Amino acid sequence: MHKLMLVDNDPERSDSLESALHEAGYKNTIRITPDANLLAAVRSHQPDIILIDMQSPDRDTLESLRTVSKEMPKPIVFFAEQSDLDTTRAAISAGVSAYIVDDLPGKRLKSVLEVAIARFQEHQKLREELEDYKGRLQDRKDVDKAKGILMQHRNLSEEEAYQLLRKMAMDRNMKIGEAARNFVAAMALLGG
Amino acid sequence: MHKLMLVDNDPERSDSLESALHEAGYKNTIRITPDANLLAAVRSHQPDIILIDMQSPDRDTLESLRTVSKEMPKPIVFFAEQSDLDTTRAAISAGVSAYIVDDLPGKRLKSVLEVAIARFQEHQKLREELEDYKGRLQDRKDVDKAKGILMQHRNLSEEEAYQLLRKMAMDRNMKIGEAARNFVAAMALLGG
Repeated sequence: MHKLMLVDNDPERSDSLESALHEAGYKNTIRITPDANLLAAVRSHQPDIILIDMQSPDRDTLESLRTVSKEMPKPIVFFAEQSDLDTTRAAISAGVSAYIVDDLPGKRLKSVLEVAIARFQEHQKLREELEDYKGRLQDRKDVDKAKGILMQHRNLSEEEAYQLLRKMAMDRNMKIGEAARNFVAAMALLGG
Repeated sequence: MHKLMLVDNDPERSDSLESALHEAGYKNTIRITPDANLLAAVRSHQPDIILIDMQSPDRDTLESLRTVSKEMPKPIVFFAEQSDLDTTRAAISAGVSAYIVDDLPGKRLKSVLEVAIARFQEHQKLREELEDYKGRLQDRKDVDKAKGILMQHRNLSEEEAYQLLRKMAMDRNMKIGEAARNFVAAMALLGG
């Protein structure tokens, strides 16, 4: 069963939301207040989903959502009592998976949470794919740089330089991009 | 003002949704039925946002949403009367920006649409960044391949091969990746 973290500073609304969650089958809920350190709370409780119930996302809240999305991404459902276009955009861009204005959807809560989780997973997949491509491009750049240095300093062909790097990586149980970065950094130390 | 495309096969629900949209300030709505070719309709009407009102997304609908998301991506709001976890996931993965189960949110319609648009733009930004990195990696691979062929066939250094490719690209007003792809393709024709 999903573990929920509920961020709310209005005990009455918290109670009604928590009982709606309970009814929807979510029995495992931790409550914290908006002034708590969200990232620290997420780190220590490891919730599957974060629910925030607030008048409107203020600057500090957006900042801590951004931090959580970067350091320890989780599905985030935001219940705002009101919002304008800029605030909506800021919330989405801070990593909110579901942004719901002026509605505490009692019986639809389960579907709202499921949509948020599905959306979050889709977003993470895309982010991971992006990180993968960034890494592959960087590896290629670093390998090229290392090859260039080897070709010049040891008078090798491109293929020989590549094989040397590959061997260096295998001997040290590294990926070739990492080995290339280490080599380039070592050369820089020598002023090479 | 946003131009909306409303996909619905229940004229009564369509009417009530359209009048709610009208009240929320969206006066420009095109109505089509689910059996119409969605991609063709999107191409000819160029809506800013697509709204779909349906019992539950069926296989054909998911397929045409996927096609639209690929060929001509737009924010998509889906109002489903019911859903399960797999269907929810399938809808999100087909490119639905807002998936709302069992609710036609009258007065919150404006915020629902704004959230969908913000979410769509965020997703597009990430997709474009991914395409950019994919392209840069592919360019680098193709340039390396072209350089390798030039170095071997014309006995050039890596730097000389690169400068030659760069000149070829500049002379033909192309990006270097494209010039490299053309060159590699031409060599393949020669069996090289």
